[in-house]
Amino acid sequence: MSVLETIYDLETPSILIDLDIMENNIAAMQKRCDDLGIQFRPHIKTHKIPAIAQKQIDAGAVGLACQKVSEAEVFVDAGFTDIQIPYNIVGAKKTRRLAELAKRADVTVTVDSKVVVDGIASAAQEVGSTIHMMVELVALNKRTGTTPEDAFDLAQHIVNTDNLHFAGIMIYPSVAQIRERLQKTLSLLANANIEVEMVSGGGSGAILESHLIPELTEMRVGTYVFWDWGSVSKGWASFDDCAMRIRATVVSANEKSRVILDSGSKTVNAETLDGLFGYIVEYPKARLHQVNEEHGYVDFTECDTVPNVGDIIHIIPVHTCVVTNLHNQIYGIRGDEIKNIWDVAARGLVW
Amino acid sequence: MSVLETIYDLETPSILIDLDIMENNIAAMQKRCDDLGIQFRPHIKTHKIPAIAQKQIDAGAVGLACQKVSEAEVFVDAGFTDIQIPYNIVGAKKTRRLAELAKRADVTVTVDSKVVVDGIASAAQEVGSTIHMMVELVALNKRTGTTPEDAFDLAQHIVNTDNLHFAGIMIYPSVAQIRERLQKTLSLLANANIEVEMVSGGGSGAILESHLIPELTEMRVGTYVFWDWGSVSKGWASFDDCAMRIRATVVSANEKSRVILDSGSKTVNAETLDGLFGYIVEYPKARLHQVNEEHGYVDFTECDTVPNVGDIIHIIPVHTCVVTNLHNQIYGIRGDEIKNIWDVAARGLVW
Repeated sequence: MSVLETIYDLETPSILIDLDIMENNIAAMQKRCDDLGIQFRPHIKTHKIPAIAQKQIDAGAVGLACQKVSEAEVFVDAGFTDIQIPYNIVGAKKTRRLAELAKRADVTVTVDSKVVVDGIASAAQEVGSTIHMMVELVALNKRTGTTPEDAFDLAQHIVNTDNLHFAGIMIYPSVAQIRERLQKTLSLLANANIEVEMVSGGGSGAILESHLIPELTEMRVGTYVFWDWGSVSKGWASFDDCAMRIRATVVSANEKSRVILDSGSKTVNAETLDGLFGYIVEYPKARLHQVNEEHGYVDFTECDTVPNVGDIIHIIPVHTCVVTNLHNQIYGIRGDEIKNIWDVAARGLVW
Repeated sequence: MSVLETIYDLETPSILIDLDIMENNIAAMQKRCDDLGIQFRPHIKTHKIPAIAQKQIDAGAVGLACQKVSEAEVFVDAGFTDIQIPYNIVGAKKTRRLAELAKRADVTVTVDSKVVVDGIASAAQEVGSTIHMMVELVALNKRTGTTPEDAFDLAQHIVNTDNLHFAGIMIYPSVAQIRERLQKTLSLLANANIEVEMVSGGGSGAILESHLIPELTEMRVGTYVFWDWGSVSKGWASFDDCAMRIRATVVSANEKSRVILDSGSKTVNAETLDGLFGYIVEYPKARLHQVNEEHGYVDFTECDTVPNVGDIIHIIPVHTCVVTNLHNQIYGIRGDEIKNIWDVAARGLVW
C-alpha cells in the first residue's frame, strides 16, 4: 500500500480515532477519579492497543483491566505490570497460563465460586506463583457474582489457600443501589478480621454514581476512551466526545430510500440503538436501518440532500468496543492527518 | 501451545467444523445445481478459507464468489482463477487493485450505476486488463441493483466501453418472484442483440426456487457449507446439517436462571433469533438470552439439569458467516479428533 498521510489516502471502510478527543477523554476520566480520591484502572477492551493503554497509564491510571488471559498476555508482553482480569478463569490450560503470567506481572482475578478458586490455586501452586484474587458480588445485571454470605465464605477460603492472596471485592456495574450489598459483605469480612485492600467497581455509567459508594477504592471503565452512540443515548457523553468514526463510502444510490454503504456488520457490528446500526455524522436524519456483512442500508427519506455514489460519510458506532474487535488496524488522526496506524494487538482474543 | 490432537486439547471458546457434515453439505449443494443443470459458484464469505474453497471446487464448483476486492486477493493468491465479486467496487484505490487482480485471474464484478462502471473502466484501461461486468437487478431485499430499463442502459454502456466485457445479469436473492423483472431485462437485451452469457442468482433460500427461474445459468450460495440456526429456522436445513459448533465452557453457575458461558458477542456475534444468540446442543431448552463481549448469559430454568462450572457445552450459532469473521482460527474435526487447524485467511477483510 502507498504511504498514508491523510484520511484521503485511506481505503474505506476505515476506523478513525480523533486523537484530540481521545486525549480529552483520557484526561477527563482520570481527573474524575482523582477528584473522587479513587484509583483508576482503564479496561483495555475498548481499544485493545498497548500504545493507547500507555497514554492511560501516563495520565495516572494505576494499572489495566483485561477480560481474558490471552488479552492480559498481550499487555504483559508489551510491558504492563499491573493487570486485573475481572473474570472467572476456568480450565486447566487457562489457569496454567494465568499462573505463568503471574510470574511476570501482578495479576489479580475475580472469582464467584469455590471451584474457580481451587482451579486457579492448583495452577499457582504447581507453577509457584501468587495470584491476587477478588470475590465478585452479583450486581443488578445478574451476570457473574455471588451473595454477600457466599462472598464471605469464598474470601475465607482464599485466605486459607496457598499461593492465593485475597485482594478484595469486585462489582460490575457498581451502581449506587449495590452499596447495601457491598456494606453487608464488608461487615462480614471486618468481623472476621479479613483485610480488604481493594473494592473495585466498574462501568461507564456507574462512574457517575461512584461518589455514592465511598467504599470504592478503584474504578474500571473502558468505553470512555472513545465513547459511542450508546453512551450518548444514555447521557454519559455527547457526540463531541465520540472519538471513533467509521469512514465509509456510498456504493449505490439509485433511490433516496435505498442508499448502500460499503460498511456492513463486519464493519459496524450488528448491535442496534433505536433500530439503527450507527449515527451518520453528516446526515443526522439518515437511518442506517439494516446491515448485511458488507452492506449498510441507509434511508435518506428524511434528509434534504442525498449523497452520490463515491461520496464519503462518517458513522459513530453504537458500541465502539465490538467495532475495534472486528478490525485489524485503526487510525489515529488529528484533523485530516494520520498520526498513528495501530494494529489492534489484542483483537479476537477470547481465551 | 501444546499439540492439538482432540477437541479435549482445545481452549474454549473454539469454533469446530464437523468435516463429515461439511463434506455432505458441499456434495449436496453441488448435486442440487448439477440436477438443475446450472453452474455452482460458492461464496467464500461463510468460511473465508482457501482449503475449504478447494473442496468446493473439487466437488465441481465453477469458481468462487467473494464480496470485497481484498477477499478476492487472498483467494487469487491461493491459486483460484475464476472469481466473481458481486459488489459495486468504488474508489480509485479499490478499482486499481481490482484491475491489477484481473491480470492474474478471471475477475467478474457487478454494477448498478454508470459511475461505478466508469470508475472500474478507467482503472482497467490504465492497467491494461479486462474486467467482466454484470449488471445487478434490484431484488425484493431492496439492497443494491437497478431497474430492467436502467440495467439495459448500463449493459449498452458496458458493451461500448474499452477494457470491459459485458457478462450478464446478477440478482440477489434470486427468488421466484424476481423472474418477471429478469425476463423483461433479458428481452430488452435480446432486442438489442446484446449477448447474455451469464444469469447469476444467489441465496441459501433462493436455491430452493431456482427451478422456477430457468433463465439462471449459475447460483451463488455461501451459508450452505456450514448451515446455521438461522437456516434451520427458515427450513433450509436441519440441525443435523449444521457443521459449525462453538465449544464453550461454563464459568459461573450460581443460579439456575443465571449460568454464564465464556462465549459472548466476540465469539457468537450479536445477531439474534427469537431473542436468543445461539442454540445449545446439549440443552435445547436453555436460553442464551444475552451476551456481553466475553459473557453468554444462559437461563436453564426450563431444563431438567444444569451444567456445573467447568462443564463444556456446544452452541450452533444464529449466523455462521459472522462467527467465522470473529475468529483467527477454526478447527476441522471428525468425531473427537482434530484434523485441520485453519487460519481464517480472509478474516476481517473489508476493503
